[in-house]
Amino acid sequence: MEDRVTELAYALDTFYFLISGALVMWMAAGFAMLESGLVRSKSTAEILTKNVALYSIACVMYLIVGYNIMYVDMPGGGFLSQIGLLLPAENSTEDVLASGGDIYYSGLSDFFFQVVFVATAMSIVSGAVAERMRLWAFLIFAVVMTGFIYPVQGSWSWGGGFLAEAGFSDFAGSGIVHMAGAAAALAGVLLLGPRKGKYGPKGEINAIPGANLPLATIGTFILWLGWFGFNGGSELMLSNVTESNAVAKIFVNTNTAAAGGVIAALITARLAFGKADLTMTLNGALAGLVAITAEPLAPSPLLATIIGAIGGIIVVFAIVLLDKLRIDDPVGAISVHGVVGIWGLLAVPISNGDASIGAQLLGIVSIFLWVFIASAIVWLILKVTMGIRLEEEDEALGADHVECGLEAYPEFMAGGKGGDL
Amino acid sequence: MEDRVTELAYALDTFYFLISGALVMWMAAGFAMLESGLVRSKSTAEILTKNVALYSIACVMYLIVGYNIMYVDMPGGGFLSQIGLLLPAENSTEDVLASGGDIYYSGLSDFFFQVVFVATAMSIVSGAVAERMRLWAFLIFAVVMTGFIYPVQGSWSWGGGFLAEAGFSDFAGSGIVHMAGAAAALAGVLLLGPRKGKYGPKGEINAIPGANLPLATIGTFILWLGWFGFNGGSELMLSNVTESNAVAKIFVNTNTAAAGGVIAALITARLAFGKADLTMTLNGALAGLVAITAEPLAPSPLLATIIGAIGGIIVVFAIVLLDKLRIDDPVGAISVHGVVGIWGLLAVPISNGDASIGAQLLGIVSIFLWVFIASAIVWLILKVTMGIRLEEEDEALGADHVECGLEAYPEFMAGGKGGDL
Amino acid sequence: MEDRVTELAYALDTFYFLISGALVMWMAAGFAMLESGLVRSKSTAEILTKNVALYSIACVMYLIVGYNIMYVDMPGGGFLSQIGLLLPAENSTEDVLASGGDIYYSGLSDFFFQVVFVATAMSIVSGAVAERMRLWAFLIFAVVMTGFIYPVQGSWSWGGGFLAEAGFSDFAGSGIVHMAGAAAALAGVLLLGPRKGKYGPKGEINAIPGANLPLATIGTFILWLGWFGFNGGSELMLSNVTESNAVAKIFVNTNTAAAGGVIAALITARLAFGKADLTMTLNGALAGLVAITAEPLAPSPLLATIIGAIGGIIVVFAIVLLDKLRIDDPVGAISVHGVVGIWGLLAVPISNGDASIGAQLLGIVSIFLWVFIASAIVWLILKVTMGIRLEEEDEALGADHVECGLEAYPEFMAGGKGGDL
Repeated sequence: MEDRVTELAYALDTFYFLISGALVMWMAAGFAMLESGLVRSKSTAEILTKNVALYSIACVMYLIVGYNIMYVDMPGGGFLSQIGLLLPAENSTEDVLASGGDIYYSGLSDFFFQVVFVATAMSIVSGAVAERMRLWAFLIFAVVMTGFIYPVQGSWSWGGGFLAEAGFSDFAGSGIVHMAGAAAALAGVLLLGPRKGKYGPKGEINAIPGANLPLATIGTFILWLGWFGFNGGSELMLSNVTESNAVAKIFVNTNTAAAGGVIAALITARLAFGKADLTMTLNGALAGLVAITAEPLAPSPLLATIIGAIGGIIVVFAIVLLDKLRIDDPVGAISVHGVVGIWGLLAVPISNGDASIGAQLLGIVSIFLWVFIASAIVWLILKVTMGIRLEEEDEALGADHVECGLEAYPEFMAGGKGGDL
Repeated sequence: MEDRVTELAYALDTFYFLISGALVMWMAAGFAMLESGLVRSKSTAEILTKNVALYSIACVMYLIVGYNIMYVDMPGGGFLSQIGLLLPAENSTEDVLASGGDIYYSGLSDFFFQVVFVATAMSIVSGAVAERMRLWAFLIFAVVMTGFIYPVQGSWSWGGGFLAEAGFSDFAGSGIVHMAGAAAALAGVLLLGPRKGKYGPKGEINAIPGANLPLATIGTFILWLGWFGFNGGSELMLSNVTESNAVAKIFVNTNTAAAGGVIAALITARLAFGKADLTMTLNGALAGLVAITAEPLAPSPLLATIIGAIGGIIVVFAIVLLDKLRIDDPVGAISVHGVVGIWGLLAVPISNGDASIGAQLLGIVSIFLWVFIASAIVWLILKVTMGIRLEEEDEALGADHVECGLEAYPEFMAGGKGGDL
Repeated sequence: MEDRVTELAYALDTFYFLISGALVMWMAAGFAMLESGLVRSKSTAEILTKNVALYSIACVMYLIVGYNIMYVDMPGGGFLSQIGLLLPAENSTEDVLASGGDIYYSGLSDFFFQVVFVATAMSIVSGAVAERMRLWAFLIFAVVMTGFIYPVQGSWSWGGGFLAEAGFSDFAGSGIVHMAGAAAALAGVLLLGPRKGKYGPKGEINAIPGANLPLATIGTFILWLGWFGFNGGSELMLSNVTESNAVAKIFVNTNTAAAGGVIAALITARLAFGKADLTMTLNGALAGLVAITAEPLAPSPLLATIIGAIGGIIVVFAIVLLDKLRIDDPVGAISVHGVVGIWGLLAVPISNGDASIGAQLLGIVSIFLWVFIASAIVWLILKVTMGIRLEEEDEALGADHVECGLEAYPEFMAGGKGGDL
C-alpha cells in the first residue's frame, strides 16, 4: 500500500514536471511571435527560421553535452561517465521505493524541463541581433551557447557549484536564464552595430516600427502562459500540501507581477510619451515576469505586483537609455531580460531572508562576465572568420531575401509579387 | 499513510485547479486575437492594448478588493477582516489533515482560478465598444467592473448569496460571467452609439469587415481550448472516481457543444446568406461554448451537441437582429455572450432536475439588471466627466493613431510608411 | 485506504488523458494556422472555415457512429448495442474498485482523447486539397471519413482487429492517423488536379508562395506542443513509476525527434536550394514528429533524434518529387504525413524488438489501400454528383469569394476595399 502511494506521488510529480516543461517549450513559440511581430516584414521569415532552428539546436546540444556539463556534480552525474549514455539512467521502481521519497520524479522529466530552459535563454539573443546578422553565424553561436556557455554558468548555481555555495538565490532564472541570454545578446549587438538607418548622423534616433503587432501581442500572451510552467515547475515538487501550496502561490505571484508590469509600463509610457504605447505595454508584461522569476515564492501577491510594476517602469527607461547609447535592440530584449533580470535578482532579499545583496551581486557579476566575455570571444571568432553582419545591400533588401529566399508576406507589400499567377 | 494519501489528493486537486486556471488565463489571449481580427486595422493596436491592460487591471483589482467582496460570506471570508490580508491565509498541513477532506485544495489556487474568470467577463466588454471608445475611459470602467460590479453579483451565486439560496443554477457562468459581461457591454454600446458609417441615413446597414480573419480564428481556437479549463475546472474537484468522471464528461460536453454550434451556425448562415460565413462560424463555436457553460455536466453528449447547436442558430439571428436595432457590436459579443448566455441558463432545467425555470429567470433578471444599471451609471459618469467617445476625426483616423501613437500593421496598408528607412 | 488510493490513481490517469486530449484538440488550431499561412490570401478564409468545420464534423460523427465502429470488439463495445447509448456507460466507483486496477480511467476521457485523433487525420486532408476544392464537397467527405473510413481501419489496430493480431506496431498513429489522412488526401488530389498555374505547359513548376509565414510558423509550434499530448497520451497510463517514466521518455523523444527534423531539413534545403527555406524547416519539424509517432518509447533520445532527422531529409525530397510528378499539395501534407509516416512505421523494428518489418508492411499496405480506395470512391461520387472542383473563374477569384463571401485580409491587398468607410 505504502509503495503504491509512493509510486503515485512519483507519477504526479513527474506529470507536473512534464506539463511545466511543455509550457516552457511553448515559450519558444512566444519568442518567435514576439520577435517576428517587432521586426520589419523584410526580416520576418529569417527571424522565424532562426527561432525554430535555435530551439532545435538547443534541444540537441543540451542532450549531447550541455546537460552533463551543467549537472556534473549532481548525484549520478559526471561528464566523462555520461558521454556514452547521454542522460542519466532512468530510476527503477526498486530504487524509487528504496529511496524513501528522495527520488520523486523521472530523470527524463527533469531533462525535459531543463532543456526547454536552455532554449529560452537562446531565444533572448535572437531578437536583439535581428535584421542584420547572418543566419548561419547566429546558428553556430547557438551551438556554442546552448552546448557550453549556458551550461557552465548553470552548473555554478543549479548544478551545485560555487554560486550555490555562496548563497546566490535565483529561483527560476532571472539571472541564470534571462540575464545570461541578455549578456550574450549584448556582446553580439556591440560587435554587430545598429541596423542601417536606426541612428542618424546628427544623433537622431529613428523609430523602426514592428510590422505586425498582433503577432507581438500573442507572443507576449504565450510567454505569459508559458511562464506558469517556467516558475511553477521550478518548485520541482508538488505532491504534498506544502509543496502544492507553494506552486499555487508561484502561479498567483507570476500572474500578478506580469499584471503589475503591464499597468506600470502603460502609465509610464503615457506620462513619458503621451500615448498608450502597445510595445511598451507588452514589454511591461515581460518585465514583470522577468522581475518575479528570481523569487516567485516568498513575496506576498501584493509585493509581487509591486516588484513586477517596478520592472515595468525600469523597462521603459532602459529601452530609452539603450537607444541613447546607440545600442540597437529591435525587440528590447536586453532591457527586458538583462536590466530587469538584474532588478529581479536584487529584489530577492526583500522577501527572502536567506538571500543577501552580496551574494546576489556576486551572482550577477559572475554570470554576466562569464557569458558576456565567452560570447564576445565566440562572436569575434565568427566575425573574423565567416562574418556576422549581412552585406549592406542584403540588409537593405532584407534578411529574408538573402538568407531564406522567400518572403514572409509576399502578397501584402506594395511591391508584392505573389497572388494571382 | 492515510495522511500521505490526503496530502496527495490535495496536491492533485490543487494542480487540476492551477492547470484549469492557466487555461482560462489563456482565454485572455483568445479574446485579444478574436477582437483584433474582427476590427479594422486602424483600431487594432488599440484593442490589443485594451485587452492586455484589462486583463492586468482585472487581476490586480480582484486581488485588492474583488475576491473579498465576492466571497464575503464564505468560511474565513469577510470584507473588512480581509482588507489587510488581501487573500485568505493558506491552509496548513495540519488543518488539511484535520479537516477530514473538507479542505482539499490550496486557497491561492482557488483565487487564481477565480481571478481569470473576472478577466473573462471584462474581455467581453472590450470587443463590443471597439473602434470608437476612448481607451482611458474604458480602462477606468474596467477598474470598477472587475473590482466591484462583477464581484457583487458573483457573490449572489458563487459566494453563497440570495441567488444560490433561490436555486439559481449556473455551473460555470453562462450568466455570472458571460451575460454579465454582455450586460456591461450593452450599457456601454447604447451610450456610445454606433461607429461612424456603420448605419446609413436611409436605414442601410454597412458591413465593416474585420481586417485579419486568421487572427479571429486562432482567437476562437484559443477560447475553445481555454474553455476546457473554464468549465472543467468549475467542477472544483477531481480526486476520486465520481469527480474525475464528471470532469471527463464536462470536457466531452464542452467540446461537442462547440462543435454543434459550429455546424449549426455554418448551415444557418449558408441558408440565410448563401455563403459559408467564416465569422458566423466562429461565433457559432463560441455560442455553443457559452450555451453549455451553465450546465456542462448533466446533459448527455448528444444533448450537449443539440444545446450548442441551438446556440449556434440563435447567434446568427441575434447578430442580424442587433444590427436591425442599430446596436453596433463589432465582434458580436452581446449576441454571443448575452443572448446565448440566456439560452444556456434557460436550458439548464432540461437536464438538471434541481433547476427550475423560475429560479433561472430570477437569476437572469437580477444579474442583468444589476450589471446593466451599475454599468450604465459608471459609463454615464465617465461620459459626462472625461468623455467616452473619440473625436470624430480621431475615429476616422483610427483609435491606434490617437490612443497608441503607432500602427498595428505599418507596412501593409496602401499608405503604409514603414519598411525601408 | 486502499480504495482511496485506487480512486486517486484513477483520477490522475483520467486527468492525464484529459490534458493530453486538450493538447491534441489544440492541434486543430495548429493545422488551421499552418494551412492558412501556406495558401494564398484569396483562399485563406475558406481554409479557415474548412478547418473549424472539419474539426466539428469529426467530433460529432465520431460521437454518433465512429467510436462504436472503431471499438466494436472491445469490452463493453458492439455497434448495435451502442447505437442508442452513443458512448460506453461510465465506470461506477464500485466497478473500478472491484476491477483490481483493470479499469483505471474514465471511459469518457478515452472518448475525448480518441475523438481529437480523428480530427487530426481529417485536418491532414484539408491542406492538400486547398485552393481549388468546393467547400461543401469537402465537408461531406469529412462526414464519411470521420464517421466511417477512419474508424474502420482504426478498429484493425487499436480496436483489437487483424492488424493488432498480426503484430502491426503503431504506437500513436504514424500510420493509423497520419498516413491514413495522407492517403485520403492523395485520392482527393489525384481526382482534383493541380491548382491553375501551378504547372506550366512546358513542364515548369511554379512556386506559389504562402501568404503569411508567421501563421505557418505558429501553426507548426502549436502542432509541436500538441504532439506531447498525441504521443504522450498514447501511453494510456501514468500512475506508477514505470508508466510515468515511459511518458517522460515519450516527451523527450517527441521533442528531440522534431528538433532533429528541423536541423536536418534546414541543412538539406540549404544544400539543395542554397537557402534556409523556412517552409522546408517547418515541414522538417512536422516530419520529425510524424516519424517518431509510430514508436516514441523504445528508442534512446539520440536514436529518436536520428529518426526525426531522417524524416526531415525525406520530407524535402518527397516534396520535390511530388512536384515533379505534378501532384499539387499546397502544404506538403502528403509528403509530411504520408511518406514520412511510412518511414516512421518502418523504423519501429530498429528499436522495438516486438515489431517486424513484415507486420509493418502489412499494416502500411492494408491501411493505405483501404483509405485510398474508399476515399477515391467517395471523392468520385462527389465529383460526379455535385462536383469537387471550383469553376475556373471562381478559382481565379479565390475560394474565399465564392465559398465564404468575404476576404481574410480585406485591407491588406492592393485592391483591398475595406478600411475607411
